[in-house]
Amino acid sequence: MSFPQAFTDPSSVAVVGATEDHAKWGYWLATGALAGADRRKVWLVNRRARQVLGHPCYPAVSDLPGTPALVVLCVPAEHVRSVVRDALAKGCRAFLGITAGLGADEDELAAMLSRAGARMIGPNSLGLFNGATNLRLAWGNFTPGSLAIVSQSGQLGSEIAGLGARAGLGVSRFYSIGNQLDLGAADVLESLIDDEYTTTVALYLESFANGARITKALKDLRLAGKHALVLTTGASEGSRRLARSHTGSMTSALDVVDAACRAAGALRVSTPRELVDLARVLDATAPPSGRRVAIVSDSGGQGGIATDIAASQGLLTPVFTGRLQTRLSALLPATAAVSNPIDLAGAGEADLEVYAKVVELLAASGEVDSIVMSGYLGCYGEDSPSISSAELAVIDRLGRQTGNAHVPLVVHSMSAASPAVARMWEHRIPAFDTIDATLGTLGRAVRLSGNPGRGPATTRVATAAPASGYWAARQFLLAQDIAMPQARRATDAGELAAACGSLQPPLVLKADWIEHKSEHEAIRTGLSRDTAVAAFNEMSERLGPGSYVVEEQDTRRGVVEMLIGARQDRDFGPTVAVGYGGVQAELWRDVSVELAPVDRRTAAGMLDRLRSRQLLDGWRGQPPADIEALIDAIVILSEAIASNPGVDDIEVNPIRVGPDGALAVDALVVTRSTPAASGVNGHRGITKKEEKSREHVH
Amino acid sequence: MSFPQAFTDPSSVAVVGATEDHAKWGYWLATGALAGADRRKVWLVNRRARQVLGHPCYPAVSDLPGTPALVVLCVPAEHVRSVVRDALAKGCRAFLGITAGLGADEDELAAMLSRAGARMIGPNSLGLFNGATNLRLAWGNFTPGSLAIVSQSGQLGSEIAGLGARAGLGVSRFYSIGNQLDLGAADVLESLIDDEYTTTVALYLESFANGARITKALKDLRLAGKHALVLTTGASEGSRRLARSHTGSMTSALDVVDAACRAAGALRVSTPRELVDLARVLDATAPPSGRRVAIVSDSGGQGGIATDIAASQGLLTPVFTGRLQTRLSALLPATAAVSNPIDLAGAGEADLEVYAKVVELLAASGEVDSIVMSGYLGCYGEDSPSISSAELAVIDRLGRQTGNAHVPLVVHSMSAASPAVARMWEHRIPAFDTIDATLGTLGRAVRLSGNPGRGPATTRVATAAPASGYWAARQFLLAQDIAMPQARRATDAGELAAACGSLQPPLVLKADWIEHKSEHEAIRTGLSRDTAVAAFNEMSERLGPGSYVVEEQDTRRGVVEMLIGARQDRDFGPTVAVGYGGVQAELWRDVSVELAPVDRRTAAGMLDRLRSRQLLDGWRGQPPADIEALIDAIVILSEAIASNPGVDDIEVNPIRVGPDGALAVDALVVTRSTPAASGVNGHRGITKKEEKSREHVH
Repeated sequence: MSFPQAFTDPSSVAVVGATEDHAKWGYWLATGALAGADRRKVWLVNRRARQVLGHPCYPAVSDLPGTPALVVLCVPAEHVRSVVRDALAKGCRAFLGITAGLGADEDELAAMLSRAGARMIGPNSLGLFNGATNLRLAWGNFTPGSLAIVSQSGQLGSEIAGLGARAGLGVSRFYSIGNQLDLGAADVLESLIDDEYTTTVALYLESFANGARITKALKDLRLAGKHALVLTTGASEGSRRLARSHTGSMTSALDVVDAACRAAGALRVSTPRELVDLARVLDATAPPSGRRVAIVSDSGGQGGIATDIAASQGLLTPVFTGRLQTRLSALLPATAAVSNPIDLAGAGEADLEVYAKVVELLAASGEVDSIVMSGYLGCYGEDSPSISSAELAVIDRLGRQTGNAHVPLVVHSMSAASPAVARMWEHRIPAFDTIDATLGTLGRAVRLSGNPGRGPATTRVATAAPASGYWAARQFLLAQDIAMPQARRATDAGELAAACGSLQPPLVLKADWIEHKSEHEAIRTGLSRDTAVAAFNEMSERLGPGSYVVEEQDTRRGVVEMLIGARQDRDFGPTVAVGYGGVQAELWRDVSVELAPVDRRTAAGMLDRLRSRQLLDGWRGQPPADIEALIDAIVILSEAIASNPGVDDIEVNPIRVGPDGALAVDALVVTRSTPAASGVNGHRGITKKEEKSREHVH
Repeated sequence: MSFPQAFTDPSSVAVVGATEDHAKWGYWLATGALAGADRRKVWLVNRRARQVLGHPCYPAVSDLPGTPALVVLCVPAEHVRSVVRDALAKGCRAFLGITAGLGADEDELAAMLSRAGARMIGPNSLGLFNGATNLRLAWGNFTPGSLAIVSQSGQLGSEIAGLGARAGLGVSRFYSIGNQLDLGAADVLESLIDDEYTTTVALYLESFANGARITKALKDLRLAGKHALVLTTGASEGSRRLARSHTGSMTSALDVVDAACRAAGALRVSTPRELVDLARVLDATAPPSGRRVAIVSDSGGQGGIATDIAASQGLLTPVFTGRLQTRLSALLPATAAVSNPIDLAGAGEADLEVYAKVVELLAASGEVDSIVMSGYLGCYGEDSPSISSAELAVIDRLGRQTGNAHVPLVVHSMSAASPAVARMWEHRIPAFDTIDATLGTLGRAVRLSGNPGRGPATTRVATAAPASGYWAARQFLLAQDIAMPQARRATDAGELAAACGSLQPPLVLKADWIEHKSEHEAIRTGLSRDTAVAAFNEMSERLGPGSYVVEEQDTRRGVVEMLIGARQDRDFGPTVAVGYGGVQAELWRDVSVELAPVDRRTAAGMLDRLRSRQLLDGWRGQPPADIEALIDAIVILSEAIASNPGVDDIEVNPIRVGPDGALAVDALVVTRSTPAASGVNGHRGITKKEEKSREHVH
């Protein structure tokens, strides 16, 4: 369904609850609406006032001379239902709900709207704004610009807009979506895909219900050439506590939000400041195409600090080639540093043109993807007016250079607001007055550009979901081509002895139906054929009759124990995780997560983000592990979870990866119908999976 | 030696190289010096000009009518020596060297000064400033205030001063110490201990030569009630490269700088922005005494983001007691969140006094150490002038509250510069316009207050430094009461067999003199008495005759393998490190370092900072390890390195810590005279120690 025009450019607006009291919402909504009166009919409604802000005022929507395309609700909560009923009767079909605190009335309101086929943004919205159509229906003042803001929290959206305004970054559209009774984040995001005025979208959400559709919308925004920056909470226990009391929904796990952002080519940021700084840079220039940065400073100290902060942002400051160093040396005094970072050692001070010459050399070198200049440039004219014009001329020269090249220049200037700094922004050279902002923002821009999102992966046909127990999990995984040790099933000592005869010791014995096997002493390792039978007798006497599995123990040395988990996320759907397994998995928490399914390239990228990747590459003289086999298993399990909506959770821990392949030596598959096994209760995630690792290390 | 008054309040100053050209140093130094002409005699010197800035000018120092107490050198490098010679002949004994690029002339200059008993700051100094005595001898303008800046990089010091000035934080003293030809960082720091105008000291250094004296000065500053904030470089490969080319000295390892800061009660920050924001807070209020923070917001979104950022800063947002929640609930609507974070849910908007009432409740509760408010407060009057005075009244009330309590309030206001925000600062309530700055700064303030520094530890009497080899290392460690397995030494098969007879298998055989034993197959584990003799025969045939050590193998299960390293740091002296040991030590890099010696409390704190601490506490149902025994070993080795300056490096890896004690099962002691053992080259640090771990895991 397309987004109703009533929320982008209505032909008429009625503000119900209009007032002249500056401290009330009705004042802001009324004055804002009136600002667009040259484009659309604006009616003010107030039960008591005959006139508001010099305009006639009507007692009720039913008294209006026409039917407003959009009705803005700024009345006390107890009046909302009657106002909406009145407006629906009048033929209104679009509402902006500013009023908060409707409580249980929301359900009835939703039903009324739905019956009438009417749409609503809010309630509990701070309002909306569209610069292109001069639609100003929100608390606060907005400057038209290129940043679209979609926010579940009105005030947080307002903070973003305010930080942007102070930095000269305007807003294309602003949607405070409030309680999302009807239209929600996904609807609004989809409406922005074709908006020509928007270059960057800021999204703040506390809850990602409908996560898959939101992810799709973010991906479509990226495909349309726009950047989406996502803010959310839930990184701490405290904010999760707040989200529960605030919105009634559990905040989604951040790692899955990050996975969704990667899949969509969006980027999660941590604060409004980070978001606005990055949006400013994206508004000025295309982000760098890679992580290599040249640091140029007229101060060794500032260059050193800049280089350290660059590294903390994941940027690289590669040593320049001898050829480039030679060319730089020709411009600079003998005391200059030319290997990267560059210390101009007074050369810029002696001849301002040196700044431009150095940047031109670097930009043309092909050795870096961006250039950061840190220091005094921007202050010369402030301190020494006689050289002000020379400084501006150098900045003009830098502007011509960066206009041509694909190597963005970002400046940290000791001046905050000199004419020279303003000139940099005119030339689309981002400039900040702290190195923190300069490099933090550049680092985020590089992460964004390095993450173009990924296309939909092909998914295999659904297989039947397994029954409960370890044997069934084995069958399910073997059917997906996951390698596991040879095993047999037995229910009595005779069957077991026969099973052992066909297997190569040492053997492992497991009670099929018990999930937390160690806890219940339902697993024994290192068994010979004889001791396996004795172990069976002891175990079946203690745990009772049932199905037991006897399995060959993986005795390869020099293997790396990893884990793979795949589960259905409540908000985002199927996900897959890979990480360091074994007994210390939960100590080091070295895990990466993606939305499932993943292709081999994405799976390889997941491993690249792991510290334990070094173990797989051959640690301390060990031969490299068969990484391709591990990637196979990740891809297979990601497809298995994506194509089997009836499977909630697949856990393989550990999967033992050696030079000769990857072997899953314990596993659990939980289907929607699987009853909780003994000793297990309900919800399960990576953490739970890792807890299992203690029990099943062979 | 006391700091020469010539550098704090000279009775007369001569500026050599004075000029009217705004773009030259001589202009800034001359105008600055003249600004203090009501307090001291100021002479300008220029070879050619008869008059500068309306003042008479002398061709040379020797032509001056008196002997200046301080001579400022702004002449080209090639003239410095002759100017200094002339001034020394005139009787001058203090110099401020602005001129840079002296190159090899520096040595001769140092000799000239030393012969005459004269002192210098610089060369390559950006100048100095003392607000209390109106001594302005630096490029740039300084506002008097409470921050002292001591910087090896003039421009970085200038950046700090500039950021401070824009934020209303002035400078008490500024010392750009440049190349530290004579007076250095330690001298200047010591001179600040008694400075009544200074509340916080900013120190930027690239090189910590004289680190022990600097640490002592920082500690004395803390004892004098001042805070020291340290900036340095060396966190990245790139900045270390720059430091080499820039100052000719290797940057000290950051972990040791951090250890020195902890010992001194100082704090390392990463950027000038972080430093200035923290100095502003320290200027306004005492830092919180603990990590517990209450988050108050009138927006659930802002409260959630604040809580996440608080957690990322190591702050705690504890759930309030039921009693406090009840009292908060009485002030707030039913939809408010009261457990921490607090979401006012519109209550502040409805009644501004609620902001103050909530803060008063929290401050008196004893449940938190600081309060952070994030949101709209500060904007009310801007948006709605009619409630401006009510907003200011609330801020006044907050100011009275925070003036009385020991629970600082820090505000994130969506307004950057409203009168309401200015009023907050007047009440010494720090307020920032981003949550990043608010909580980043609070987090650093808490780390600073939680780190009071430590007194000198008692050190045991020096023991004899050991000879080379494993047996000697054993003897050294056993003499310090470090527990090690039983062992015997043997040089032939007969001796070895006898030695084995007195030991309990399994046994380990090591070639005493070989350091990288695995690499050279100079270690065998899991030996019986018989196979030990065979192993000896094989090994001695291959490696040649020498001393061999046979040792009981530690076969306890469920132990945690840790490492302890103690070494002499080139800059800071003795240090001790403890970390996760074993084969993956270098993968996880879980290590903490302190200056040595440490007491038991500091050693326990080192363990608390380790992630692997969880293993020692009893991981996955294992019994807790004997942490006291590990602490004993840390303390002992820290004292051993501190009391044996002839010992460069002590490495114990692994030290196997179980419920029944800690056993050092491999060790290396390197003395200043120890020749490099076979297969080893030179320098050695934690990394090298960890490399060894691969070889000696029993």
